[in-house]
Amino acid sequence: MGLWSVDKIEYIGRKGGTPETLGFRYYDADKVVAGKKMKDWLRFGVAWWHTFNQELVDPFGTGTAQRPYYKYTDPMDQALAKVDYAFELFTKLGVEYFCFHDRDIAPEGDTLRETNANLDKVVDKIEENMKATGIKLLWNTCSLFTNPRYFAGGATTPYADIYAYAGGQLKKSLEIGKRLGAENYVFWGGREGYESLWNTQMKREQDHIAEFYRMGHEYAKEIGMDAQFLIEPKPKEPTLHQYDFDAATTVAFLKTYGLDDIFKLNLEGNHANLAGHTYQHEVRYARETGFLGSLDANQGDKLIGWDMDEFPSDLYDAVSVMWEVLAAGGIGPHGGLNFDSKPRRSSFEAEDLFRSHIVGMDTFAAGLLVAAKMHEDGYIENVQAKRYESFDSGIGKSIEEGKESLASLESYALDKTQAELIAAERSDQLEVVKASINNYIVDALAEA
Amino acid sequence: MGLWSVDKIEYIGRKGGTPETLGFRYYDADKVVAGKKMKDWLRFGVAWWHTFNQELVDPFGTGTAQRPYYKYTDPMDQALAKVDYAFELFTKLGVEYFCFHDRDIAPEGDTLRETNANLDKVVDKIEENMKATGIKLLWNTCSLFTNPRYFAGGATTPYADIYAYAGGQLKKSLEIGKRLGAENYVFWGGREGYESLWNTQMKREQDHIAEFYRMGHEYAKEIGMDAQFLIEPKPKEPTLHQYDFDAATTVAFLKTYGLDDIFKLNLEGNHANLAGHTYQHEVRYARETGFLGSLDANQGDKLIGWDMDEFPSDLYDAVSVMWEVLAAGGIGPHGGLNFDSKPRRSSFEAEDLFRSHIVGMDTFAAGLLVAAKMHEDGYIENVQAKRYESFDSGIGKSIEEGKESLASLESYALDKTQAELIAAERSDQLEVVKASINNYIVDALAEA
Amino acid sequence: MGLWSVDKIEYIGRKGGTPETLGFRYYDADKVVAGKKMKDWLRFGVAWWHTFNQELVDPFGTGTAQRPYYKYTDPMDQALAKVDYAFELFTKLGVEYFCFHDRDIAPEGDTLRETNANLDKVVDKIEENMKATGIKLLWNTCSLFTNPRYFAGGATTPYADIYAYAGGQLKKSLEIGKRLGAENYVFWGGREGYESLWNTQMKREQDHIAEFYRMGHEYAKEIGMDAQFLIEPKPKEPTLHQYDFDAATTVAFLKTYGLDDIFKLNLEGNHANLAGHTYQHEVRYARETGFLGSLDANQGDKLIGWDMDEFPSDLYDAVSVMWEVLAAGGIGPHGGLNFDSKPRRSSFEAEDLFRSHIVGMDTFAAGLLVAAKMHEDGYIENVQAKRYESFDSGIGKSIEEGKESLASLESYALDKTQAELIAAERSDQLEVVKASINNYIVDALAEA
Amino acid sequence: MGLWSVDKIEYIGRKGGTPETLGFRYYDADKVVAGKKMKDWLRFGVAWWHTFNQELVDPFGTGTAQRPYYKYTDPMDQALAKVDYAFELFTKLGVEYFCFHDRDIAPEGDTLRETNANLDKVVDKIEENMKATGIKLLWNTCSLFTNPRYFAGGATTPYADIYAYAGGQLKKSLEIGKRLGAENYVFWGGREGYESLWNTQMKREQDHIAEFYRMGHEYAKEIGMDAQFLIEPKPKEPTLHQYDFDAATTVAFLKTYGLDDIFKLNLEGNHANLAGHTYQHEVRYARETGFLGSLDANQGDKLIGWDMDEFPSDLYDAVSVMWEVLAAGGIGPHGGLNFDSKPRRSSFEAEDLFRSHIVGMDTFAAGLLVAAKMHEDGYIENVQAKRYESFDSGIGKSIEEGKESLASLESYALDKTQAELIAAERSDQLEVVKASINNYIVDALAEA
Repeated sequence: MGLWSVDKIEYIGRKGGTPETLGFRYYDADKVVAGKKMKDWLRFGVAWWHTFNQELVDPFGTGTAQRPYYKYTDPMDQALAKVDYAFELFTKLGVEYFCFHDRDIAPEGDTLRETNANLDKVVDKIEENMKATGIKLLWNTCSLFTNPRYFAGGATTPYADIYAYAGGQLKKSLEIGKRLGAENYVFWGGREGYESLWNTQMKREQDHIAEFYRMGHEYAKEIGMDAQFLIEPKPKEPTLHQYDFDAATTVAFLKTYGLDDIFKLNLEGNHANLAGHTYQHEVRYARETGFLGSLDANQGDKLIGWDMDEFPSDLYDAVSVMWEVLAAGGIGPHGGLNFDSKPRRSSFEAEDLFRSHIVGMDTFAAGLLVAAKMHEDGYIENVQAKRYESFDSGIGKSIEEGKESLASLESYALDKTQAELIAAERSDQLEVVKASINNYIVDALAEA
Repeated sequence: MGLWSVDKIEYIGRKGGTPETLGFRYYDADKVVAGKKMKDWLRFGVAWWHTFNQELVDPFGTGTAQRPYYKYTDPMDQALAKVDYAFELFTKLGVEYFCFHDRDIAPEGDTLRETNANLDKVVDKIEENMKATGIKLLWNTCSLFTNPRYFAGGATTPYADIYAYAGGQLKKSLEIGKRLGAENYVFWGGREGYESLWNTQMKREQDHIAEFYRMGHEYAKEIGMDAQFLIEPKPKEPTLHQYDFDAATTVAFLKTYGLDDIFKLNLEGNHANLAGHTYQHEVRYARETGFLGSLDANQGDKLIGWDMDEFPSDLYDAVSVMWEVLAAGGIGPHGGLNFDSKPRRSSFEAEDLFRSHIVGMDTFAAGLLVAAKMHEDGYIENVQAKRYESFDSGIGKSIEEGKESLASLESYALDKTQAELIAAERSDQLEVVKASINNYIVDALAEA
Repeated sequence: MGLWSVDKIEYIGRKGGTPETLGFRYYDADKVVAGKKMKDWLRFGVAWWHTFNQELVDPFGTGTAQRPYYKYTDPMDQALAKVDYAFELFTKLGVEYFCFHDRDIAPEGDTLRETNANLDKVVDKIEENMKATGIKLLWNTCSLFTNPRYFAGGATTPYADIYAYAGGQLKKSLEIGKRLGAENYVFWGGREGYESLWNTQMKREQDHIAEFYRMGHEYAKEIGMDAQFLIEPKPKEPTLHQYDFDAATTVAFLKTYGLDDIFKLNLEGNHANLAGHTYQHEVRYARETGFLGSLDANQGDKLIGWDMDEFPSDLYDAVSVMWEVLAAGGIGPHGGLNFDSKPRRSSFEAEDLFRSHIVGMDTFAAGLLVAAKMHEDGYIENVQAKRYESFDSGIGKSIEEGKESLASLESYALDKTQAELIAAERSDQLEVVKASINNYIVDALAEA
Repeated sequence: MGLWSVDKIEYIGRKGGTPETLGFRYYDADKVVAGKKMKDWLRFGVAWWHTFNQELVDPFGTGTAQRPYYKYTDPMDQALAKVDYAFELFTKLGVEYFCFHDRDIAPEGDTLRETNANLDKVVDKIEENMKATGIKLLWNTCSLFTNPRYFAGGATTPYADIYAYAGGQLKKSLEIGKRLGAENYVFWGGREGYESLWNTQMKREQDHIAEFYRMGHEYAKEIGMDAQFLIEPKPKEPTLHQYDFDAATTVAFLKTYGLDDIFKLNLEGNHANLAGHTYQHEVRYARETGFLGSLDANQGDKLIGWDMDEFPSDLYDAVSVMWEVLAAGGIGPHGGLNFDSKPRRSSFEAEDLFRSHIVGMDTFAAGLLVAAKMHEDGYIENVQAKRYESFDSGIGKSIEEGKESLASLESYALDKTQAELIAAERSDQLEVVKASINNYIVDALAEA
């Protein structure tokens, strides 16, 4: 069977097998939906850190994960072995993209020079495997949060030496991205924030990180690395407050520092919830402001205040996000759905990596099928069009065309009675609209 | 005694009277602190809606408030009588500013024309009283949320007639602001948001509200109304999601629509908490990005998910916010501390309006005294300066001057060992910093 | 058509009509599911307060509701007219139960005596309608929270006169319940809690309410009123902290005061969420501890901190709650599904009362269909049985039989190796279990 | 100086030294407050796990802690060395109690037998040090959550072998408690809960844990171990839902299983907040229901959804908790204040262990001083007494004596008018009560 004790995962359909059978119920890679193959809408990616490095620890317990490559005890041996395991897993799942942090793939040495040497060896092997399989790098990034040196941030640290080190780390990471043809390059500022405003010069820190981005972009141009730069918002955890709180906050930062032409956003469901938003909200916001870059596919629990990074199984989230993606014509020019997800601690077997990816892929495939049916029908579009139709003609149109003034509006409204005004409004039957999502789910998936 | 059965409230000092005695323990209006009179740092304002109109209802109960002017049963009679009660209350409290929504001060008629006529009568009387007392209008605004017509928003409503009506209402409100010399004009978008993204064209709504602001600003210029325009963020409630979620989200919006030169922010503690932030965070953000306009003084409870609008009594909040205000040299060129606060339903007597304002004023006066002592000592400034000192010279300074590149940073860092890097960092002794706030509170207030 | 401009709502099936068509997609009253008619599993009830009295106000806006009986301006005329509207609505929806607070159905007079006289007139008319239609009273209750006199509680008020008044009110309410054959009698302590512990004698208040319940139960026995007594937990809102925080807290109270034989629980989805729980958790807890009494069917939004009382449309909640109900063999000996739900402010038309009830009824009918299929398959039961099977024999069985001691367990475990212990555990494949719910939803509903 | 590079920490008073000076500002161990020495009210304990084992990791980063005993690389060597470091730290801080989990003090072997042998060696050394110093064991406990075997719980695991192992572990832990004279024995059920109700037999799990407690209590009696048994509630984290959600939920469990005579509660501030409560609420609840056992002193951040275990610096919490403790005459017959607290990751130096304990001790000492002054004045007691005085005579007294019935209450209330009823109520001036806490803080601490 190969390194992993499972066969290639095939599409078995909704009625195929028992719940335990390994197979896709909705994800049928080459099936054409809304004019594109499923795999081209979804562009699934495997996250190296969760899938290969996550030992399934939590703050109160050591790891439960059982992985075949734990037999390799030397860090470099294990790192190199993981490449084989990774590409076999990608292939067996039929996933065409992957993502990693620099520190996911190779162990650190005592100096950056030594660490970079370790990286080169693993990257060589990854490159070979990419060529051999055609699997692509959705994005890479550098970890400026795991090592203790970054306890107060990488690009917002108050220690110039650490900042300099982070800069060196970014340089190498961009070079790797260039070499491996990364479609995007991601910045997640998990330590770029504060524990207390009392000891923090917030603006100075933001000046520093803007300069960091500027240097990064300049260097990317210099070496001809043309990956789309992305920022991934998260409001808190590990830090009390993180600067890239949510999509809107990040856009404010980008515009303040004139970086809005360079960056788009990588949005995650669990992070959205931690910021008090739905996943759909963040995607809608980014879509409509032109910042939709890529997506991290996972889910949390809205009653829980930390990052769960659960594999997605909630159809409501998947449908709403895929509805936005279809409305945008795609996740973004370079985006994909990276599973920033890990199995639960109780799903500790190696095979659970397959089971949980299947669940995540099926959930988003189902979301695509439902959303595609919704767009095909145009039901939601009609609901919206009808709701705003008073802006399509008359005074509404004139407002949209910028032809009105407060004075002209006052004239228009001055003698309208309360009853006339109320009569201009209609029930939006919101309960019916919400229930219709359920109907679309059943209709679209019953056919799958 | 006048209309209210209390005498003018005087400064009695920390040891003056029992807890029940009506008098200021910390607020001593003309006392000079950090180079200015207390009253000039604080610029307290009374909120007409809470203080005179709030019947102390909640979603599960009718009003408990007992007010002397409830004897007036005709709406216009009561509205006019309230002006007398209001100015006597301002005077007795020694508050020099007030704030109102258009609909707070006069009842609506069947048409905007009739409503405006009602407004004119009350504004006449307010103007007289302002002249007689020297009390000033901190800001006014128009209510685009109470009347049922605004169930789906005023400037983001999908109904063009309602939008037009809102425009007419804004026109009148600006005229009143001009006439009464308002220092600021506030927009709070309590209904400008969505209940569901499924029936919402978010961008279209934001285009509409940007146009609304543009017309508002144009008209203000036209009539020579030079109040500072402010937006007051709130993330949710009454609406599921409000567009002006927090300070940063609002800045993103303003920059997207090129309105960032026209607007500043009016920030509120309870709203900050509902967005997942501290009050200090919102004020710091606005201060450092140049958007600090004015403040709504109140508090919520971080374990509660709705707007409590409690009179402030938390010293930690008051100290941290006043620390920011002192750092900014003032709340803003035109800002003040408006008590967007109401007594609890159990504090239903007329005298509780005085008691609760005293508590709020004393809390912020105490905050000012403590923050002033902190700035005088420079303890926090030193903590910060020391923490970032590696950016004051050497590589850090060079980074701040924009002279470095990833390549130069890599060279600098490439051979530094883990031990060398860790040695570049120091404990920030955050526990000690936090405890020092307690010491400043006791030190500063023991002298009051 | 009658008083309401809609016809009787019929079952039209999943594919019947457009989303806007008034008809049931899943609720087919007489269809037999898991051995009982749908209507007998679900026992839907209409909540008088939301459906007939709720004007669709919120803390920031006046009511949007349009109701045909608003033409009656005299409170008693309107109250009596509503009875006709109510029974026609029940009949047209095919709902066989209803619920009310005393103050929902008749206006208050200046004294309890006068109020009771008002009540008698309306109850006469309700009784007539019940006889004529066969529609039954699921439960009634008394409102000890709306009138300002109850600002600090009814049975936990610090004012003895108010407590006495509440007792008198309860007496009348029990008499009405007896007369109308109420199947349950509910206590919801919306004001029974505290705003601040500083001014609260918590234990004394709980002693008072326990005495209140004792008197209530005694009086019910005295008059031969045999309705099941229920407490409805809610953690907060309107009060900062409510004593009946959640199911478990209420059970602790009942056991502390020896009231656990008299009371069961009425559980609500939105209240569960406000307490940090899922709806399923509360129902499971009550089912397994023997306190499952009845259910309030509604939903909130887990990102929102107040009571939304939305009509249920979330299938996950409906499936999980109905799974528990099926496992219990019914909601409770006397329980039903009362729609403690109101249309959104934007669904303000009279017809929206029908539309939103249809959505709620269909959602729970769908939940029943899915849960019944799950129970039929026994998939979840098998997952559980397999997971705990080590307790069905050997040492596990012996533990369950109470035959082991720490010493015997130590002997058993003392020399087991880490590897042996880990080998005793299996992956629970939780991701697969969660995804299977999606499959059951599609499978069961595709057939509907 | 000894093992740690700091001198014994002395009381230096509020004005002693700069913020950085190592010394107590409020904690003066032998000072008599409210009739007892400070140290006897507070009974501070050091938590072995946080203070000696916590490497200051978080879910996104490896440890930052710098500890002198990291030079010992053999686990047993380090474990034994820590005993010396521990007792010197206790002595230098003047803390007379400590607490530990079994796994904190000694490394695990491959079998329970081997692990127990490791434990014995370390316990020998701890016992010697206790005798030499007079320092006492506030409580011990066993860790049924860190080792991967416990991923699904220790006493609620679905795996009988794991349960048996946990029983063996508890046996040894009770023996150690007996030997070291533990004043309490604590159970914290961090994994005793569920990730999903779909795969959980909740009642069966609770039956199991009740049996576990029964066996534990039986064995304690058998060996003459008379420590007070305590349960420590926490609502969630690491598990999605933990059975000991909060104080009330735990009381419900204890009463359901007839364990309420055996157990009291160990309450923690941060856990209270995660359950939606204040620390004061949990302590008040336990005090009034007779379940106050001991306290974990720490704080979280109410805007943060995970366990921060910050050293306490918030005076409001400390004052309110110490007010309850004074009202109870002590924390509990055997209770103390265990610092379940860790320095921030940025306070990584060895000396920060001293700094942060000083902050925690001073905060609670300040809380004691303020609360003692409040009790001395009786201000709060008077506020409460006055508020409830209508229950001290007349109808109120008769209600409390159980002499009334609904009929008698109805007679009493039947003809009272609305105005009479409202007149029976008074404003509680809650704003003034809250502000008075500020005044007590300044008054009491200014004298320190």
